[in-house]
Amino acid sequence: MDLTKAKITDVKDLKSEDARWVKIQKVYYQDPNGKARDWEFCSRQTRVEGSDVDGVGILAIFEKDTGPEILLQRQFRPPVNGVVIEFPAGLLDKGETPEQCAERELLEETGYIGTAFHSSPILFCDPGFCNTNLKLVQVSIDLSDERNKNPKQQLEDGEFIENFTVPLKEFPERLEALAKEGYILDARLMNIAEGILVARKYAL
Amino acid sequence: MDLTKAKITDVKDLKSEDARWVKIQKVYYQDPNGKARDWEFCSRQTRVEGSDVDGVGILAIFEKDTGPEILLQRQFRPPVNGVVIEFPAGLLDKGETPEQCAERELLEETGYIGTAFHSSPILFCDPGFCNTNLKLVQVSIDLSDERNKNPKQQLEDGEFIENFTVPLKEFPERLEALAKEGYILDARLMNIAEGILVARKYAL
Repeated sequence: MDLTKAKITDVKDLKSEDARWVKIQKVYYQDPNGKARDWEFCSRQTRVEGSDVDGVGILAIFEKDTGPEILLQRQFRPPVNGVVIEFPAGLLDKGETPEQCAERELLEETGYIGTAFHSSPILFCDPGFCNTNLKLVQVSIDLSDERNKNPKQQLEDGEFIENFTVPLKEFPERLEALAKEGYILDARLMNIAEGILVARKYAL
Repeated sequence: MDLTKAKITDVKDLKSEDARWVKIQKVYYQDPNGKARDWEFCSRQTRVEGSDVDGVGILAIFEKDTGPEILLQRQFRPPVNGVVIEFPAGLLDKGETPEQCAERELLEETGYIGTAFHSSPILFCDPGFCNTNLKLVQVSIDLSDERNKNPKQQLEDGEFIENFTVPLKEFPERLEALAKEGYILDARLMNIAEGILVARKYAL
């Protein structure tokens, strides 16, 4: 599978009434002084009714004898016309908790059976532009578990995802190198790497 | 100024032809196997022609005698109906580099005169949903500079931004506490904090 073979053939403006997955809205609000204002923004149409979370990002770190490694993905993303380096992620199904979603998506996208052990607050991806959000769920994967010896993806039609790991110690430098090779970086992932650099610089 | 006095009065679906700031599009593409597929996504209408960057996030760390502190903002964001904890940020003007944009936005939003000294690759905010992106620009602020003794915001009409700093050592814990108080977290900011936690845990 060569993900770089994916390519865009056309982009067209979409009418609101023809959109099934996304939508645009205008919000009317009072500013802190009580003045009436409005703001345009984008949303997913897929958020489960009654839920306030769109999906999860999965932070999975393998504790290997040779040192910790972080689980990453390469995936062609049509909106940005390129192969993006991301963490495993997915949208909540109806009735699912973020932790259940993380374990299900991890299994589907990577084949690994994991256990969610920590979830972030709800994090908004670009809150001046849209209301999409996620919880960052940390998942442990027991590599000594027989079921994790030969992980097999269970991808849906149209999903093309490659998994790989990088040593956590080299994570920031590896992301920079991947960007130079032409891969596209997800801000949410890269900023974990930026945090590692800040921690190093200031001995946090 | 009490930012929590801002409140939403109504939300309406928006027709594509009535939108001035955002838009929805459908991209047609060939997957890695050559099969024709399509995908809906959202964009800003404001990206400067010929530019491939929407805006910047600004990472400004004050090097104080008492230890490093990170510069943060509180801002009411209508799309998410709440006061968001973010880093200073803004959209590129025509002809501006990301570094120039970061220095201008820093001055406008905080009153501080800073110098950009490092920029990340282009980072995409939510690449399965939209094509919005930013560069994370690191800016140094010389607090001994007379012009930085009494910083004054130069906000535009409709902008209500409060600046504050937190000790870098307590940054992850302070964000968690702010979330518990009801503030909304920007994923890009919180994931820098998550990176600090990962670095601590694994002694990176």
